[in-house]
Amino acid sequence: MYDLVIRGGTLVTPAETFTADLGIRGGRIAALGRGLAGDHSLDAAGLLVVPGAVDPHVHLQTPVGATQSSDDWASGTRAAACGGTTTLIDFVEPDLGASLLEALAARQAQAEGAAVIDYGLHMTLLKTPPAVLAEIQAVVQAGCPSFKTYLTYEGFYLDDDSFLSALESVAAAGGLVLVHAENHALIERLRQRLPAAGQTAPRYHARSRPVGAEAEAVERAAALAEAAGCPLYVVHISTDRGAAAVARARRRGQAVYGETCPQYLLLTEAELERPGFEGAKFVCSPPLRPAGHGDALWRGLADGNLQTVGTDHCPFFYQGQKDLGRAVFTEVPNGLPGVEARLALLYTFGVGTGRLTLNQWVHVCCANPARIFGLYPRKGTLMPGADADLVLFDPNAAVTLSPERLHENVDYTPYDGLALRGYPRLTLARGQVLAEDGAYVGPPGGGRFLKRAYGKDH
Amino acid sequence: MYDLVIRGGTLVTPAETFTADLGIRGGRIAALGRGLAGDHSLDAAGLLVVPGAVDPHVHLQTPVGATQSSDDWASGTRAAACGGTTTLIDFVEPDLGASLLEALAARQAQAEGAAVIDYGLHMTLLKTPPAVLAEIQAVVQAGCPSFKTYLTYEGFYLDDDSFLSALESVAAAGGLVLVHAENHALIERLRQRLPAAGQTAPRYHARSRPVGAEAEAVERAAALAEAAGCPLYVVHISTDRGAAAVARARRRGQAVYGETCPQYLLLTEAELERPGFEGAKFVCSPPLRPAGHGDALWRGLADGNLQTVGTDHCPFFYQGQKDLGRAVFTEVPNGLPGVEARLALLYTFGVGTGRLTLNQWVHVCCANPARIFGLYPRKGTLMPGADADLVLFDPNAAVTLSPERLHENVDYTPYDGLALRGYPRLTLARGQVLAEDGAYVGPPGGGRFLKRAYGKDH
Amino acid sequence: MYDLVIRGGTLVTPAETFTADLGIRGGRIAALGRGLAGDHSLDAAGLLVVPGAVDPHVHLQTPVGATQSSDDWASGTRAAACGGTTTLIDFVEPDLGASLLEALAARQAQAEGAAVIDYGLHMTLLKTPPAVLAEIQAVVQAGCPSFKTYLTYEGFYLDDDSFLSALESVAAAGGLVLVHAENHALIERLRQRLPAAGQTAPRYHARSRPVGAEAEAVERAAALAEAAGCPLYVVHISTDRGAAAVARARRRGQAVYGETCPQYLLLTEAELERPGFEGAKFVCSPPLRPAGHGDALWRGLADGNLQTVGTDHCPFFYQGQKDLGRAVFTEVPNGLPGVEARLALLYTFGVGTGRLTLNQWVHVCCANPARIFGLYPRKGTLMPGADADLVLFDPNAAVTLSPERLHENVDYTPYDGLALRGYPRLTLARGQVLAEDGAYVGPPGGGRFLKRAYGKDH
Amino acid sequence: MYDLVIRGGTLVTPAETFTADLGIRGGRIAALGRGLAGDHSLDAAGLLVVPGAVDPHVHLQTPVGATQSSDDWASGTRAAACGGTTTLIDFVEPDLGASLLEALAARQAQAEGAAVIDYGLHMTLLKTPPAVLAEIQAVVQAGCPSFKTYLTYEGFYLDDDSFLSALESVAAAGGLVLVHAENHALIERLRQRLPAAGQTAPRYHARSRPVGAEAEAVERAAALAEAAGCPLYVVHISTDRGAAAVARARRRGQAVYGETCPQYLLLTEAELERPGFEGAKFVCSPPLRPAGHGDALWRGLADGNLQTVGTDHCPFFYQGQKDLGRAVFTEVPNGLPGVEARLALLYTFGVGTGRLTLNQWVHVCCANPARIFGLYPRKGTLMPGADADLVLFDPNAAVTLSPERLHENVDYTPYDGLALRGYPRLTLARGQVLAEDGAYVGPPGGGRFLKRAYGKDH
Repeated sequence: MYDLVIRGGTLVTPAETFTADLGIRGGRIAALGRGLAGDHSLDAAGLLVVPGAVDPHVHLQTPVGATQSSDDWASGTRAAACGGTTTLIDFVEPDLGASLLEALAARQAQAEGAAVIDYGLHMTLLKTPPAVLAEIQAVVQAGCPSFKTYLTYEGFYLDDDSFLSALESVAAAGGLVLVHAENHALIERLRQRLPAAGQTAPRYHARSRPVGAEAEAVERAAALAEAAGCPLYVVHISTDRGAAAVARARRRGQAVYGETCPQYLLLTEAELERPGFEGAKFVCSPPLRPAGHGDALWRGLADGNLQTVGTDHCPFFYQGQKDLGRAVFTEVPNGLPGVEARLALLYTFGVGTGRLTLNQWVHVCCANPARIFGLYPRKGTLMPGADADLVLFDPNAAVTLSPERLHENVDYTPYDGLALRGYPRLTLARGQVLAEDGAYVGPPGGGRFLKRAYGKDH
Repeated sequence: MYDLVIRGGTLVTPAETFTADLGIRGGRIAALGRGLAGDHSLDAAGLLVVPGAVDPHVHLQTPVGATQSSDDWASGTRAAACGGTTTLIDFVEPDLGASLLEALAARQAQAEGAAVIDYGLHMTLLKTPPAVLAEIQAVVQAGCPSFKTYLTYEGFYLDDDSFLSALESVAAAGGLVLVHAENHALIERLRQRLPAAGQTAPRYHARSRPVGAEAEAVERAAALAEAAGCPLYVVHISTDRGAAAVARARRRGQAVYGETCPQYLLLTEAELERPGFEGAKFVCSPPLRPAGHGDALWRGLADGNLQTVGTDHCPFFYQGQKDLGRAVFTEVPNGLPGVEARLALLYTFGVGTGRLTLNQWVHVCCANPARIFGLYPRKGTLMPGADADLVLFDPNAAVTLSPERLHENVDYTPYDGLALRGYPRLTLARGQVLAEDGAYVGPPGGGRFLKRAYGKDH
Repeated sequence: MYDLVIRGGTLVTPAETFTADLGIRGGRIAALGRGLAGDHSLDAAGLLVVPGAVDPHVHLQTPVGATQSSDDWASGTRAAACGGTTTLIDFVEPDLGASLLEALAARQAQAEGAAVIDYGLHMTLLKTPPAVLAEIQAVVQAGCPSFKTYLTYEGFYLDDDSFLSALESVAAAGGLVLVHAENHALIERLRQRLPAAGQTAPRYHARSRPVGAEAEAVERAAALAEAAGCPLYVVHISTDRGAAAVARARRRGQAVYGETCPQYLLLTEAELERPGFEGAKFVCSPPLRPAGHGDALWRGLADGNLQTVGTDHCPFFYQGQKDLGRAVFTEVPNGLPGVEARLALLYTFGVGTGRLTLNQWVHVCCANPARIFGLYPRKGTLMPGADADLVLFDPNAAVTLSPERLHENVDYTPYDGLALRGYPRLTLARGQVLAEDGAYVGPPGGGRFLKRAYGKDH
Repeated sequence: MYDLVIRGGTLVTPAETFTADLGIRGGRIAALGRGLAGDHSLDAAGLLVVPGAVDPHVHLQTPVGATQSSDDWASGTRAAACGGTTTLIDFVEPDLGASLLEALAARQAQAEGAAVIDYGLHMTLLKTPPAVLAEIQAVVQAGCPSFKTYLTYEGFYLDDDSFLSALESVAAAGGLVLVHAENHALIERLRQRLPAAGQTAPRYHARSRPVGAEAEAVERAAALAEAAGCPLYVVHISTDRGAAAVARARRRGQAVYGETCPQYLLLTEAELERPGFEGAKFVCSPPLRPAGHGDALWRGLADGNLQTVGTDHCPFFYQGQKDLGRAVFTEVPNGLPGVEARLALLYTFGVGTGRLTLNQWVHVCCANPARIFGLYPRKGTLMPGADADLVLFDPNAAVTLSPERLHENVDYTPYDGLALRGYPRLTLARGQVLAEDGAYVGPPGGGRFLKRAYGKDH
C-alpha cells in the first residue's frame, strides 16, 4: 500500500516514455508499476508525469547595484512551483573578503521558512584572498560543491590568475566551477564608449557585448579549466560560437557543461529595438542575440553538446527598477524573469516543434541539472527512491502567457502574449501537491536546503 | 504481491542506473520499487539487472550455397539465452517468385517448438515480381514489417530499380527495409580476378570487398530510400566511411539506422592472415577491416550515429564447412558465430574500456533493436508492462571465451581466448529462468513468434 | 623585338596580378616584361590581361534524340571567341560498337576548317564491347586522353560493371574519365511516373531528377574510380551534396575533380516555373536546383573543392526545338546555351561580389581546365612559351545580356536581362585578334585540333 | 638587352612552374621570356628559380634578459643570404614609455651598413601610454605598418585592455598587429610552481606552457581583433588547436593570418628530454610540442589555413648563454637559430615528402610573407618590376646540416645531422650574387631598410 498513487499517467524519463502507476510512500517515489494500490490516488490519464523540474540558475532577492531582484524566496519559489519547478539553485554572494561559510549560513537563513520548494546554493567566488580560498573545502562539505565565477562585471570580475586560483582550489576540493563567460576588457570599453557617443538606448546594450566576447571567454575558461583539472559549467550560453567552444572541449574529453536559457532560445536582439524604453524589459547579460543563434542553441540541446536549460531568473520591475536606466542603458538592471514558464516554454517550442523529443525535454529541464549539480538521484528522476517531486503536465492545455497569468513578482514578462500548448496541471513536491493549474495551493515555507556533492552522475 | 521479486539489483535502463527491486507478475514486469514483496525472490545484490538482450540479426539453419548455417533453432536460441539474449530476429528467405506468406509460415513452423526464446522474422526480398510485391502489405500485417534486401550476392542482388521497387512497396505498407550494402559489380569483378591471378587464400577475401564498396552502397541505399520515403536499416556496417554515410543521412533528417557487429568492433583483417587455412574462420561479409575502422564504429555507437549491435550470427564448422573453400576463398561459406557472446563482449570491451556507458550498452544491445524493429515496449526495457525478460549480469565474473565455454553448434569461436570481465549470471524470459552461469536450464522450445509493427519508438 | 606587344595591362595569373607588357612572337607568348618593344602594339592600360578561357565542356552540332544542338562548329566557336574563350573541348559520340578511332576522325573532320578556335575532343564510352575498349590506348595516343561516361540516359547509361571496365581501361591507358553522375534507375522511374500522373510541365523535369540522384552517383563514381585507380572528373555538379562527395574523395587523396556551370551557380529551379512553356528554356540535366545549392558551389570554387567552371553548352531553339516537349517535359531537348558568357558571368557574379578573387577567376575558367585536360602549359596561362591566347578584359564595361548581344545560334539566353559589369574587349588566339568588343573579327575556320595528354599539371 | 639573364631555369611562382629565361635590368626583374639576350648570363638549367625568400620573423642582436641573441645584423643577414633569404623583418623594441620613432631610428641605424640583405622592422608595443600610442600613425608612415604584441612575458605582456588599445590604434592607422599568443597567467603560475617542486630541467619548459595556453590565446586575440576591426598575424603557431582557431577566424571572414616555424613542423618535445643539459638547445617559446601537432601544421600550410613559415630566429650559444639556465629552465634564454636553413628544410621535408607542392613552398616562404607585410610586389615574386632577388635552387644537392655548414653565429643547430635533398646554389639580391653554394660572396652591408605599407595583397 502506498500513501498516494498517481494512476495511469504517461511517465517520461530521459530515455523512455511509458504508461504506469507511480506509488509514493513517505514523500518518495516507492514504485512504478501496474495496478498499484494506495490510500489516495490521482488520475493522470492523458497527462505526462515528469520529474519536478530543476532550475540550476536563479537569482532571488539579490542586490544588483542600487536595487535588488524583485522576487524574494517566497514569491520566487511559489512562481517556480506553479510552473513545475520543484528545485532551484540560487547563489550566495559574500562580500569581498568575507567568510564564505558565514555568507552561506546567512543566505540559508534567509531562505529557510520562506522557500516553498527545495533549494541548493552555489557559492560565488570573488578575487578571494587565500584565507577565503581555504574555506572552499568546508563549503563543499557543507553541501555547496559548485562555485560561481564571473569573467566580467566590475566587482565580480576575476582576471585569469584569480580564475585559475579558483579553478585549482575548487578542483582540489572536489567541486565544480560555474562561469559567466564574457570578455571584461572589451565590454567595459564599449560600455564607456557607446554612451560617450550618445548611444544610450537599450539597444546599445547588445552592441556593448559582442558575440566574440562570449566566444573567446568560453574558450579561455575551458582551456584554463583543462589546465587546472577542474570541471566547468558555462552558464547562459547565448551564441553559436559559445556553444561550439563547449562542444570542442567536450570532444577532447573535458568535463565541461553548457547551459542555455529560454530567452536565448526564443528571443532575439530585435526585442531591444522596441519603441520607447520598452527594450529595457529585455536587457540581460549576455544580451539577446541576432536571429540564428537560437537555432544553434536548440541543435546543441538536441545533439547533446549543451546539457541544461536554466533561467537566470533575475526580475526587475519595468516601472521603478528597469527605468533606472532611462538615461543610459548601462544603468538598466540586468536580468529577466523566467523561473515560472521554463518547463512549458520548452515543451511548446521544443517538443511541440520537433526540436526536442519528450525525453530530451526531461533531460535538459530536470535530469541533467540534477545530475551535474549533485541532486541526483534524489531529484530529477522518476526512479524509486527519488523524492516524489512530480509534474503532471497536460500536453493539451492552452495557455497564453501574460504577467497576470504568472506569479513572478514583477510587472511584465518577456514572453507576454506567447500562446503555449501544454502546461503543468499539478506540481507535487515530496508527495504533496504544491500547485494546481498554475495556482499555488501548498503550504508556506516548506522548502529545504539540499546538501549536494559533485559526483559522476552526469 | 508479485510472483517473483528480483531484489536489490542495480537496474540499468538506457538512461539511468539505480538500485531497486523488480516485481514480476504473469511473466511481465509489474513494478520497479523499494520493498516489493513476492512469492519468490532472487537476490541481485551486486548484479546489474538489464533488459534481456535483443539480437536483430541472426541466421539459424539457413542454406548458404551447398551447406547451411550450423546452428538450428534449438541450438542457436539456447546459445543466445546462455549469453543473455532473450529475443532474436532471424530471416525468411523465400525462393525467387515464391509466395512470401507461405515462406513465412514455413519458417515459423520450423522455429515453433524448437526456439527457446522469443523471435521475430525479417522477410527477404529478391528480384520479386509484382505479384509477390503485392504480398508485402499482408506480410506486414502478419507481424513482419522489416524486409531484408541485398545489394550484392548472386541470386540475392537487387539492382537499383528492383531496390527502389522494394523500398516503395515497403514504405507504402508502413514497414522498413534492411539492406546489406556493398557494391555488387566491384566485388564480382574482384572475386573473379583474384582467384584467376592465383590469389586464392582466405586473406584475399578482404581484398575482394574494398572499403569503398561498402561506403558507396550505404550512400546509394540512403539516397534511394530518401527518394522512396522509406525507413532504412543498414546492417553490419564495417567501415568508418559506411558509418559516416549513415550519419550524414540522419543529419539531413532521414530515418536511417546503422548496425554494427562485435566482429567489426573487435577484430581486424589481420585475422585473415593466420597461418595455414585458419584465416577461413574469419571469413564473413563485409570482411574484417584494417585497424582504425573499429575505433570509428565504437565512436559511432557512443555518439549515437550508429544505433545497434547485432551479431549476423551465421556459423559454419571449420572442419567440414569452412574447408569447402580450401581451394579458393570464394568457396568459403561466409559467416561467423557470435550470438552468444555479444552482451558480454560489449560489456568488457565497451563499458570496461570507457568507450560506452552502462546505459549506452543497454541502448545498443537491448533497447534500440527492440525499438527500431517494433518489439518495444514489450522487449528491450525494464518498464512496467514489459515482458520479464531480464539478465542478471555479474560485472565481476571472469570468463575466458572458448568453443567449450560457449553453446553455439560450431567447432570454434572467433573470440577464442579473450578474457572477459563481466558475464551473465542468470537469464530470465517472461519471468522464467532460462540460463544460469552460462548453462541452459530452461524448458525446451518455449519461444514464441513475435508479431511486430514498425512505429515511432526509435 | 616582338611581333606584338600588349602594353601596360594588368596581367592576371592564377596567383598573381601585376602590370607588365606582354610580348608575342610567332603566335606565342615570348615575354612578360617592362618596356618590351614590338612591331605592333596594343594598349591595354586599364584592362585585365588574362589567358584565353578554356571551356572543357561543350556540345556543338550534337544529335540529341530527333534533333541536334543548334550551334555548329562555326557558330559555336565564334560565340566562344566573342566571349573570351579561345579553347574548347567537345565530344566524340561513336555509335554503339563503332570504332572509336573512326568516330574521332569523323568528328575531327567535321570541325576542321569550321572551328575558329582551337579545340580538343573527349571520347564518349558506351557499353563498349572489348574490341572497342581495346582502342582506348590508341585514342589516348591520338591526343584524346579524356573519356566521357554517363551513369544515366537511355543509350548512354553505363551500369556499374561497364563503368568499372571503362575506368580500368582508361586508367591503364593513362587517361582520365569524365562522368555525368546521376542515378539512372531513380530518374527513369520518375520520368515514367510523373507524366503518367499528369505532371507534364517543364517544372516536373526538376522533380524527376532529385538532389540525391546526383549525390549518390558522385559518391559511387568516386568509389569505383578509387577501386580502379582511375582519375575522375565529375561534370556539371549542381548540388551541395555532389560537391561534398567530390571534396571527400579529394581529402582521401584521390585524383577527383569537380566541375560546375554558370547555370548552377546563378539560376534556380524557380526558372522552371515560368508562365506558359517558358520554363522549357531552362530544362537541362542535371536540372536547376533549389536556392542554396548555388552558394555551396561558389564556396566550393573558392575553397578549391571544385576545380573548374564549364558550360555544358548545348543550345536548342525555343521555337522549333524546345517545343518538341510541349506535351511532356521528357521530350524537351536537354540543354542550355552558355558558351559565350561564361567568363563575363563569372567576373560579375564571382569577382564582382567578392565570392572569387581575380586569380581564382582565372584559375577556374582558364588554368584549371587546361591543366586537368592536358592543354597546359600551351593554354590557360600567361607564361612564356604558351600560345598567345589572351583576353583583354575591360573590368568596367557595362553589358546587358540578351540573345541579340550574343552570337550563339539560338533564339534565347537563360541569362537574358542580366546586367554585367566587366566584359571582354579583345580576344586573341595565337597572337591574332579574333573578337573585338564582343564581335567576331577574325578569319574563318582557323581553329586547330589539340592533341592532349593527361599528366600531372593539376 | 638586359644586364643579366638567368637562362633556362625552372621558374616557380606561387601558382605555376615553367621554363623560361629571366632578364634583369637595373637590379629588377625586367622580363620573363624565351630567348632573352643580356650582357651577362647565368645558366640555370636543372635549377629551380624562385623568389628570394622572405623571413617575416627574426630577432638579431636582441637583448633577452641578461644576454642578447648571438647573431648581429651582419652575421645574421649573411647566414640568411647563404640560405636563400633575401629579405627579413626584425623588430624594434622600444623601452617602456620611450618614443617609438626614436627607437625605430636607433634600430635602423644599427642595421644600416651592417645588414647585407634588405630588411623591414616590426614595431613592438608594450603597455604603451596614450602619448606613445599617438605615434603609431607616424610609425606606419615611416614604413612600419606591423606592430608586435605579446600576450605573455613579464615586461612585454599586454592585458586585454592594453591589447585592445593596441589593436584599435593600429587599425586606425591602417596597420596590422602581430601577436605572440600564449596565456600569461597560466604560464606564470607554472613557471613558479614547477621549479618550486624541483622540476627544473629543460623538459619542464614544455610543461610550463601547455597546448591550451596557446589555443585560448589565439582565440582571444582573434576575437579582440574582430571587435577592433584590426588585421591580425599570429606568430609561431605550434599546436593543432592554435591553427584551428586561426582557421575558424578566417572562415568567419576575418583578416587573420597564421605563421608557423620549421621547429614546430619538424621537431617535437622529445628533444627536450635529451641527456644532460642538451635539452636546453631546444628551449623556445612556445615550446616544442608532442608528436602530431606537426602534421596538423603541415596540413594547415597545404590547405591554406596557415599562411607563412617564419623562423623566429633568436640564437643563443649553448656554451655561455643557454647554460645560464642550468639551475632552472626558466633561466634558459628562449630561442633557436634557424634563419639559414628554412628554405631548404621546407623543400626537403615539405616538397620532398609531398606535403607541399613546389608552388605552395614558394607561397609560404616567399610570396605570402611579402604580401602580408607590404613588401609585395617588390619582394616575394618573379613578376617584372620586382627586385631581382632570386634563389637558384638545386633540387638535387645533397647537404647534411651541421653548425659548421651553417653561418649563423652560434655553436649548434637544432637541425644537426639532418640530410637534405635540395639546397640553394646561388642567391641574388637586386641582381647581384650574394651567396654561392652556401657561402657568402657578396659585399658587406648593402642591405636597405624597406618602407612597407599594409595593403590588400594577401
